[in-house]
This record gives sequence, structure tokens and C-alpha cells, in this order.
Amino acid sequence: MTYRAPLGDFSRILKHVVGYDRVAETTLFEEASLETVEAVLGEAAKMCEEVMAPLQRNGDTDPAVLENGVVRTSKGFAEGYKAIAEGGWIASSADPAHGGMGLPMVVTTCVNDMMSGACLALQLNPLMSQGQIEALEHHASDALKEIYLPKLVTGEWQGTMNLTEPQAGSDVGALTTKAEPLDDGSYAITGQKIYISWGDNDFTGNVCHLVLARLPDAVPGTKGISLFIVPKFIPDETGEPGQRNDLRVVSLEHKMGLHGSPTCVMSYEGAKGWIVGEPNDGMRAMFTMMNNARLGVGVQGVGVAEGAYQHALAYANDRKQGRSDTGTILGHADVRRMLAEMKADTFAARAIALALAVALDMGRATGDAAWKARAGVLTPIAKAFGTDTGIDVASKGVQVHGGMGYVEETGAAQYMRDVRVTSIYEGTNGIQAMDLVGRKLMDGGEAVFSLLDEIETHAEAGKEHMPDLAEAVWQATETLRETTEDLLARDMADRFGGAVPYLRAFARVLGADAHLRVACAERGGAVERLARFYITRLLPEHSGLCAQARASDLPAAEDFAA
Amino acid sequence: MTYRAPLGDFSRILKHVVGYDRVAETTLFEEASLETVEAVLGEAAKMCEEVMAPLQRNGDTDPAVLENGVVRTSKGFAEGYKAIAEGGWIASSADPAHGGMGLPMVVTTCVNDMMSGACLALQLNPLMSQGQIEALEHHASDALKEIYLPKLVTGEWQGTMNLTEPQAGSDVGALTTKAEPLDDGSYAITGQKIYISWGDNDFTGNVCHLVLARLPDAVPGTKGISLFIVPKFIPDETGEPGQRNDLRVVSLEHKMGLHGSPTCVMSYEGAKGWIVGEPNDGMRAMFTMMNNARLGVGVQGVGVAEGAYQHALAYANDRKQGRSDTGTILGHADVRRMLAEMKADTFAARAIALALAVALDMGRATGDAAWKARAGVLTPIAKAFGTDTGIDVASKGVQVHGGMGYVEETGAAQYMRDVRVTSIYEGTNGIQAMDLVGRKLMDGGEAVFSLLDEIETHAEAGKEHMPDLAEAVWQATETLRETTEDLLARDMADRFGGAVPYLRAFARVLGADAHLRVACAERGGAVERLARFYITRLLPEHSGLCAQARASDLPAAEDFAA
Repeated sequence: MTYRAPLGDFSRILKHVVGYDRVAETTLFEEASLETVEAVLGEAAKMCEEVMAPLQRNGDTDPAVLENGVVRTSKGFAEGYKAIAEGGWIASSADPAHGGMGLPMVVTTCVNDMMSGACLALQLNPLMSQGQIEALEHHASDALKEIYLPKLVTGEWQGTMNLTEPQAGSDVGALTTKAEPLDDGSYAITGQKIYISWGDNDFTGNVCHLVLARLPDAVPGTKGISLFIVPKFIPDETGEPGQRNDLRVVSLEHKMGLHGSPTCVMSYEGAKGWIVGEPNDGMRAMFTMMNNARLGVGVQGVGVAEGAYQHALAYANDRKQGRSDTGTILGHADVRRMLAEMKADTFAARAIALALAVALDMGRATGDAAWKARAGVLTPIAKAFGTDTGIDVASKGVQVHGGMGYVEETGAAQYMRDVRVTSIYEGTNGIQAMDLVGRKLMDGGEAVFSLLDEIETHAEAGKEHMPDLAEAVWQATETLRETTEDLLARDMADRFGGAVPYLRAFARVLGADAHLRVACAERGGAVERLARFYITRLLPEHSGLCAQARASDLPAAEDFAA
Repeated sequence: MTYRAPLGDFSRILKHVVGYDRVAETTLFEEASLETVEAVLGEAAKMCEEVMAPLQRNGDTDPAVLENGVVRTSKGFAEGYKAIAEGGWIASSADPAHGGMGLPMVVTTCVNDMMSGACLALQLNPLMSQGQIEALEHHASDALKEIYLPKLVTGEWQGTMNLTEPQAGSDVGALTTKAEPLDDGSYAITGQKIYISWGDNDFTGNVCHLVLARLPDAVPGTKGISLFIVPKFIPDETGEPGQRNDLRVVSLEHKMGLHGSPTCVMSYEGAKGWIVGEPNDGMRAMFTMMNNARLGVGVQGVGVAEGAYQHALAYANDRKQGRSDTGTILGHADVRRMLAEMKADTFAARAIALALAVALDMGRATGDAAWKARAGVLTPIAKAFGTDTGIDVASKGVQVHGGMGYVEETGAAQYMRDVRVTSIYEGTNGIQAMDLVGRKLMDGGEAVFSLLDEIETHAEAGKEHMPDLAEAVWQATETLRETTEDLLARDMADRFGGAVPYLRAFARVLGADAHLRVACAERGGAVERLARFYITRLLPEHSGLCAQARASDLPAAEDFAA
């Protein structure tokens, strides 16, 4: 099994779709020219291809296990982690003040995409650290920053996120973990957390848990939640790991996939923690972390889609079948249809993720509220469409393999099992869609309409070279605009029933915009043919989706009892 | 985990959608009144709920294994098989001359649906026997029938199908297994077969393999294939299992799911076999078996969809979440959307399967070519849409469970892993779609158009009670008609690239017809609301699908190298 990093598509998207040049023109990112970025991505690509991709199957065949209270990780993961850390890929966007490279999110996003395509179970580890670094940079005291950030950035230590409890999943406000103030300004954390990805490992000097908990006087719900950093080993006065903290891994979940990533049930038993941000303001800090994590999880889907696509294509090129034109199953129209859908959707999802990364970078570099609003709109779409695409492409990858796809040794099924969780964690895709039609339309649709205006401008420009495709994109954008207006006229409860199809229709239009733009830039070849495929075949899905979004009849709870 | 057989939906569909009364009016099935059928299904339901459903998890947690060349099956499967056999559920449609009940395929189809929903891994066993019985009834000599059929029908012996070889999957004509004539009129079979479902077990007195092989003088390709029955134990002169035959299970596949069903690599080493049908006419016999098996596999998808739906609904009713109206996650609009899609699609897929069963029964009972042509059109649709629905519903079932869905102990992931193979085996769904736009349109579309005419007649009638829904169904049918005409004007190669979306659009329209008809019969309640949901939300997908079917641009093989 081999993996080749999609450097060509990254360049295409950065140049022709998301307008990366604007990022490089800001003062903040003036050193990150496109050439520099491409060189950096080339380095990361090498590491992903040579070090991480060979570990992919190990995560499945030699799963992480809990032995005497300690997590033992899959064969080779320790060395893979070391390569990630040494390359600086844990947090390439982190602040140089703490050892980061200060590169745009665009770079981190491409690197996460490649690492996910190469070995998702291992990539989830640095993704957790990235979220923690982000949260600490924004909300921690200088003292905490100084202790934790440098070691997290280099990968000497690893970070986790602890939100979920058995009775508090999507409804995070229901959590009950307690934080009691101690005399020295720290807190004693007590409670059980579940679904803690990479809650422990056997290759970093410390594991630092960001834990949501309640102070003794906290009000119920999300307004009474605070955030704490709770290390496995308490840093001593020199900042080195000291005394073992009162926390432990109770068990690992037996999951459908991602067996290389230990998903821990964690028990905090009066563990020493330090508050991050203000008391009762934990949700705000959590959202800092979660917003970027949503982009991160979205590109997990994109990365796996790429890996699964390449894996299926290699099989289709290899599997002899006399009756077809090419002598292989690639000669069959339906096999090409599947592969074209996989490739076209992966490209679309990647372009959406990078558009979000650019919006985040521009928002940060310029402080412009419009960029921040743009990022707000794109976040749930990048997360949900990226992960849905990962799941769909991986399933098509199994199908391309025929019976071989169902046999585990082939590796196709692993992509499908591994990626299946991504539409669930970091806010289910249903929650992403509710965020889009809810909070993200609270501006009366301003950010959405400005995005649709831009797409129509591109479509107008595209009419010069490929009028039929450009017209289809323009029409679809208009349908999406009308659907948005329709949703805006409704109350929230009524919007929510159509939220998921609306989000998907939005992604279809964004994907069409991306395909049209690269096709206009690279006319007459495979890129144009793929764009034509997407726009004539996949974009039309948007009309049914918009109809679904606008249909208001939803069976009532009682109907399911019938 | 509990499973309740969907007896209400069976009755609804038999009465209001597929016109079962016509079957009961034929001489052949005059004893199978609707009341009798309902009573029979009630008995099967009890067995599925009480005996099979409790075995579902065992198939996953205690997989079939090969020990010293012998397959050891999952805990409880032997007893489960005994209950299936004793109830007469292995082959309720088999000829009474050989001990069958002679019931319509409608009954077998409903029973297969229920057994699949209760425990797919075990149900696959009698499904294999059903195919073998069908093939022997139609093609075997009287002598072979007398030896094999009674024991297969009672379940004393079990049957398998042996088509695939490592180099010959969908391209069955590439197979190389040899059959050399022996002096006693039997043949020596030599070769390796793969993906043999239930190739062995530890609970039947014999395992009888139907094996495709080549006679010494056979021409290459499918025209040189003959069919043989090759028993594990060679029947002695009294018809009882005698000498061990020269065949063996080499290994079991390590699959994504269906762990309770041993998928064998079989080696035939000069094993004694008897020819079934004429020399070099094996493909015709195989198709007898495969056509019914396609319906059988289609309802495997439907059955698993039902099981996964019930399992997810139970969770949604149980999972407390304070913020919702009902106090559970069922109060969330998006959870109800998912469950409504699951329920509405399961109903649609079931109605299509039963329409096919009725067409098969009517074709057999009346000999009418129009019914046979109807069955021909519905076969690929029932197979592909049934299994796609199973896969989609099971994946949504995981999603409804949130994080719990990814944890194996919950059982949601098992449905998804188990059912994933159904879109691959018994002819991949791509092959089904090629059959639909290829062979099944060779009559110039006559059978398809007659079906569409009927749907439009129903829609006209439906306008009395629910004009908006009926109009939507009528319009969608017209779009499908135009798409069909469009495909007919093209050559085959050009049709194949749009075959899968065309098949799905067809299923969407058939499903809408079924929902409209039950809604007209049961107005004003949950049934009507579900029909409204399907027709306003899921039916609109057909327009994008028809657009896909009509788009002719498909990337060329070279484009994927780019």
C-alpha cells in the first residue's frame, strides 16, 4: 500500500480557488509565500509517505491496548510520532514565541490532510495537541503558557481534550465533573470522562488533559463550566514532569475502527489541575479549541478520502479483467464513475477546508470581521462535508474492490471503519448543520449571501471559457440563495429539520465553484474533465437537497411508536 | 437488543401496494390466502424474535473458526439453525413433491426479511440452500432431485454456491476449475473456489456444493461452463452420507463483518461431482439460482435496515437529553429526520422486494410473459436498492447513537459491518444497474414503460385524496420516463456510465408509488405522514439522479493517472 501526497491539488487550490496570495500579502504571514508553503508541504509530504503511511495497517492489526494501567501503542507509532514531532508538524501554526513556526492555518490544514491520509489513527494524536495549544495560547495565564506550550509544540508532551461524560455527550452542559479550589491556587478535579482520544501513550514524557469541570458554586448548564489543565505528571519547579497525578485510564473502548488510537475512559480522583481562562468561562475556551478542531476533523475526512481513493485506484489499475477495454476493471464505466465521484468529491471537500483555513488566516492577520464571519459559515460545512466525503469515499473504495474490499487484509475496509467516527466526534454532523442554519444565520444571512455573491461573480467570469458549466453553477447558487431566504423566514425549530440537507446543498455549490475555477485555469485536460463530471453529475444533487431543506413536514416523536 | 418483526408493514404492502390478492386468486396459490400468509408470517416472526435475534451478537463476538480443517460455528447457531429448519423456513416455497410448503415467493421473501433483521450471519445459511434447491428443481435429473432435494428442504443438509475463483469474480467466464468425466457418469472436480459463504458447518449431516467448472473440451468464456453438485459426503446407495469427498476448507476469510458466517476458500481435489443440467449450460442454471438469490440478498438489506432502525429508535427513545422536547434525543428534529429517512426508505425497499416477489409468483402461476418481464426489471432494483438501503440505514443507525455507535458493544456498528457485503456479493450493485439499462431494456423499454404507466394510473387515482403528493409522484414518473427514453437512444457503453444513478432514480419512484398507495389507504395518521416525508423529501433526489444518468461525460482511464 502506498500513499502519495496530493501536492498538485494543494497548489491548484491555493492558486486558483482560495486565493492564497492574499494571505501571503498580509504582514503577519509575509514570510509564507506560496513558494515557501509549497516547499514546506513537500517536506511534510515526504514524512507522510515514507514514515506514516507504512504504519497505517499496524494501527489496525496491532491495536493500542491497556496493560497494567498503561497504554501500549501500536508497533511503529512511537517512531512515527517522533518523526512528526521532529519535523515540527505537531503545530506548525503555533506562535514562534513558544517554539512554533507561526505558519498559516493553510499549512497546518494541508499537513493534517496528508497525515490523515497516511495514517489516521496516529494523526489524531497531534490533532489533539493542536487544539490544546490553541486553547492555551488564547486563554491560559502566562505562567501556564510558559510551562506547557514549548513542550506541547515540540511534541515532548501530548495534549488531550476531556469534554464528554456518560450522561453528557452533545449536551455538554450536563457534565458533573467537579473542581474544588485548593489553597495553592490549583484545583482538585474529580469525575469520569469518556471518549478521550489518545488519553495516554507510551512515547511522550507527559500527557496533558484539558478538562471541563464545575466549580462548587457553578450554575447548572454550560454557563457553569470551567476549563482546567490536568497533567499526568505534575511539572516540578523546573517544569519537568514530577509527581504522578491522581488520574488514570480505566479502560479503552472497543471501537469499530481507529484501533491504533487509544480511546480512553479517564478517571480523575482529586487530580491536581490549573484553571485555564476565567472561572465559569470554560465553554468559550472550549470553542476556541473546537472551532479549529472542527476544521482539523473535516480534513481528517478529506485525508482518508484521498488515501482510500488512491488505494482503490491502485486496485482498479491492477485487477485484470479480460472483458474490459483496458484489460483491468478501470475499463468498466461504472468503476470509473465511482473513482471519478471519489476524486471529484475529495477535491471539493479539500477546497472547502482550505477556503476555511484562508478565512481563519485572513481573520487573524487582518482582524476583519467579514473574514471571521466567513470562517464561521465555512466551519460547519468543512467539518460535515469533509467527514461525510471521507465516509462515502471510503465506502466506495470498498465497492471498487468488490469481494476483496470486504476482506480485512486488503485495507479498504479499514479506511471505512477508521473514518466512520469523524462524522460523530467534535460535534456530530447534525450539530454542525444546526450551527449553520442557527448561529451562522443570526446575522440575517449577511455572511452567507456575501459568499454566494462571490461564487456568482466567479461564475460570471467563468462564462467566458465554459459557459455551460458556469451557468449551471450560477443557477445552483441562486437556488441555494432562495433556500437560504426561505430558511431565514422560519423559526429555529423549523429550520433544524432541514439543516443537514441544507448544509450538503451548500457544500455542493462550494465544490462546484472550486471545480469551475480550477477548470477555467487549467483548460482542456483531466482537470477540466473532472470539473465537468462534478458539475454535470454531482452538483445536480443540490436541487433535491434544497427541496428537502425547504420541506417542513417531519414525523413527530409519537409517529415512531406506530 | 430486541427485534420485532414488521408484520404490520408486510400486511400493508401486501394489501395496498403489491396487490397480493392476485396471487391468491391463481390456481397454483389458491391455498395461500392473505389470512393464511399472515398466519404463516406470524409463526416465522415468533421464531425470528425469540430464537434468532438473541444470536445476533454471538455471530460477532464468537466468530466461526476453522479448527483442524473443520468449521466451528458461533455459540447458539446450531440451535438457531435447528429452529429455522424445524419451522420449515429454509425453503417455504419449495415444491411439496420434495417436502416443501409450495408457498409463494412472497412468503419466503417476508421470512427472509425477518430472519435477516434478526440475525444476518445465520440467515445467509438457509439463503444459500434456497438457491441450491431452486437450481436443482429446475435443472437436475430426477435421480439427483430425489437424493438431494428432500434433505435440503428439511435442512438435514445444507447447500452452497461456488462461482468465484481468485482470477474470476464478476468475470465468471474466466474460471478454470476442471471437471473430468469418470466412467460411472460422475465427474472429478479440481480447482479452488473463494468467497464460499457457509462452505462448511458443524450442524448439518452434509454440505452440498454447487460448483461451476469446465469440461475438458469446453470453449473459453461463459459458454464453456457447466454446473455440478459436489457433496462433502458422497451419498451411499440409501442416500445417506457416506464416504468423505475430496474437498476441503482451506481457510476462512477475515472479513469486515458477518463473522458468524464462515466464508471459505474451498479446494476441490478430484472431488466426485454430478452434472446439473446439460454440459456447457451451467450459466443458465446459475442464473436460475442467482435471480432468486438477488431478491434474497436485496431483502437481506431490507431486513438489516429494519433491525438497525429498531435498534437506533430504541436508543433514541432511551437516551436522555434534558434540552429536548421529549427529554430524549428523539426530541431533536435532526434525530427524527434520520429515523424518518431510515423508516421511509426501509418501507420503500421492502415494497419493491415484495413487488418483485409478486411478479415472480404471478409469472410462475400464470406463465404470463409480461409478469416475467416485470420480474426482470424489478430484480436488479430490488437487489441494489435493498442493499444500498441496508448500508445507508445501518450507517445512520450508528450516527443516531452518537459516540456510542462507534463502540462495538452497542451493536450498531455490527449492523453496518455485516450488511456492507450485500452490495458486493450476488452481482455487485454496479452489475445490477448495468443489467437494468442493458438486458432489461432490450425489449425497447416495454416492460419499464408498462410499469411506469401503472404508477401514473395509481398517481391519477391518488389525486382524489392527496393531490399534492400524487402530482409529485406523477411528475417524477414522467422524468423517469424521459430519462429511460434518453438511455434507449444511446449505445450500451454510453448507458453504463449512468446506470447506477438511473437504477436509484427508478427505486425512488417505485418507493414513492408504494408510499402514496398506503397513504391513500390509511389516511390521516403516521402512515400518511411518513409518505409525505418520503415524497416531499426523498423523492426529489430523483431529479439529480436522472441528471446524472443523462450526463455522458465520464473521465477516461488516462485521466486518473493525472
